[in-house]
Amino acid sequence: MHVLIIGAAGMLGTRLANHLAARGILNGTAIHHLTLADTVVPPTPAFQGAVTTLALDISHPDAAAQLIAARPEVIFHLAAIVSGQAEAEFTTGYAINFDASRALFEAIRLAATATTPYTPRLIFASSIAVFGTPFPAQIADDFHTTPRSSYGTQKAATELLLNDYTRRGFLDGIALRLPTICIRPGLPNRAASGFFSNILREPLVGQPANLPVPDTTRHWFTSPASAIGFFDHAASLTATMLGPQRSLNMPGLSATVAEQIEALRATAGTKAVALITRTPDPAIAALVNTWPQDFTPARAMGMGFRSETSFDQIIAAHIEDKLTPIT
Amino acid sequence: MHVLIIGAAGMLGTRLANHLAARGILNGTAIHHLTLADTVVPPTPAFQGAVTTLALDISHPDAAAQLIAARPEVIFHLAAIVSGQAEAEFTTGYAINFDASRALFEAIRLAATATTPYTPRLIFASSIAVFGTPFPAQIADDFHTTPRSSYGTQKAATELLLNDYTRRGFLDGIALRLPTICIRPGLPNRAASGFFSNILREPLVGQPANLPVPDTTRHWFTSPASAIGFFDHAASLTATMLGPQRSLNMPGLSATVAEQIEALRATAGTKAVALITRTPDPAIAALVNTWPQDFTPARAMGMGFRSETSFDQIIAAHIEDKLTPIT
Repeated sequence: MHVLIIGAAGMLGTRLANHLAARGILNGTAIHHLTLADTVVPPTPAFQGAVTTLALDISHPDAAAQLIAARPEVIFHLAAIVSGQAEAEFTTGYAINFDASRALFEAIRLAATATTPYTPRLIFASSIAVFGTPFPAQIADDFHTTPRSSYGTQKAATELLLNDYTRRGFLDGIALRLPTICIRPGLPNRAASGFFSNILREPLVGQPANLPVPDTTRHWFTSPASAIGFFDHAASLTATMLGPQRSLNMPGLSATVAEQIEALRATAGTKAVALITRTPDPAIAALVNTWPQDFTPARAMGMGFRSETSFDQIIAAHIEDKLTPIT
Repeated sequence: MHVLIIGAAGMLGTRLANHLAARGILNGTAIHHLTLADTVVPPTPAFQGAVTTLALDISHPDAAAQLIAARPEVIFHLAAIVSGQAEAEFTTGYAINFDASRALFEAIRLAATATTPYTPRLIFASSIAVFGTPFPAQIADDFHTTPRSSYGTQKAATELLLNDYTRRGFLDGIALRLPTICIRPGLPNRAASGFFSNILREPLVGQPANLPVPDTTRHWFTSPASAIGFFDHAASLTATMLGPQRSLNMPGLSATVAEQIEALRATAGTKAVALITRTPDPAIAALVNTWPQDFTPARAMGMGFRSETSFDQIIAAHIEDKLTPIT
């Protein structure tokens, strides 16, 4: 099996590449070839099979055809610019987060011929940003997508096309609406949700971090390791299990900032908690108030997707992750 | 006020142009200029102010800029190819029903400058085709859009962009999810829903018509006159009334084919009903089974949108409409 990861130099993409390289198998089939693509050359994981790395701009007109030239059977599409950048750079956001995805779908459609059909399983990293206020305390699987950001709009529109291309038989798509990834490793990026990770990651290594919102703020989380599990599991789902609606709300953990902090205290003590400063940022607080707080992801749970059930587990996943060198 | 109708030669567009020309007023403001655009030169209604007619291909790169060159304050965007054609002609469907709408939004965004802002009210003709099975017997306002057609996908994706462009302040959009228009006047088009109108319209003038689905088939309807009322009313809604979610499920009448036929019998007698033939079409029946049957359009009702409440009224609206020459 030939597997392509688009966005393979990103936080999740790097982990997914390492995971697949280490396992060597996906949906019960041996992987013989990994193609890893991003705007920069992605790191090459240790792997028994072939690894191809590609550095390209997915918004370039030739990029999609180049990505699928070797007809990978499974495509993980994680490439995106984050919400803060998509809000700040309107046209870039649409070009990268929507048009490039559409170009990929089109390239797949056009690559198929009567004698050589081509309908790869395409697993798309969508986001709970497709949901926006007003919404109920718990969001059900059939709740409408009313994004309050350009990023969420681009993800929701891409999902619609992914579903239509799948229905028409042009590809075999699944969109995973990921919770906020926590604890996000590494340095802060332009995601406004960064503080959810910062207030744990930094104190865990003795560094201060600011909390710009009230402790009562509730949000929806999963660990990087669980997210990688989602991608792996999605490759194994059958069309019968999935049915006509290919966008899935992933499971996660609904927790308040106070619950995050209590888990930090349980793991690292009061001295770690004392490293959290509390300078409010009304702009971030206002934005966070438009984000989902909790879900009832019955469909995905029924298909076997699983996430953490406590913040202690999420912190443990982070510590485990730090013990596993990524590059 | 300068009002632009895109799709002004279509069934609804022609009626909307006549309605606005006859009233001479929209949202309490006098109309001094009507621009009517379509792929063919739209009919020119009797109007005291100026009428400009435009024949253009909205998928042409220059079309959008041409349409908004005179900066109309209110834009009614009804241009589309119908569901059957969008399903048969994949790329044409996306070009006309999605890309052309997006190009219009972009042209509006780019027309605004610091010294001359431009944020027209843009009323977009969307459709209940944004909904697809599985769904409940009655669809609520917050039910997710899971189209089972390329047409519905294109409408839903356009809605997402309309909402984002509105949120960003680039335009002032409203999407009206229209029920199936019944009784649709004139000749059958490529819409698979045509029989809902055919079985009334043709017997009313002594002509036979075929019913390809069972009498128990339930669907969601409004008259052409009510649809024109929706467009007119949408021009008057304030941002406060609308809130952040600019896509609205329009009110309608949920009725079975049997109820349609009883209304035909009440108006035109048993001889008219006898003109309905019953040759089943399993393909059409299968398609219709994926269409919505009923809604609880609380938001739109709360904003004052109104439709018929019986099929007797819908037939009466058709007879009234036939007495009002359109062109």
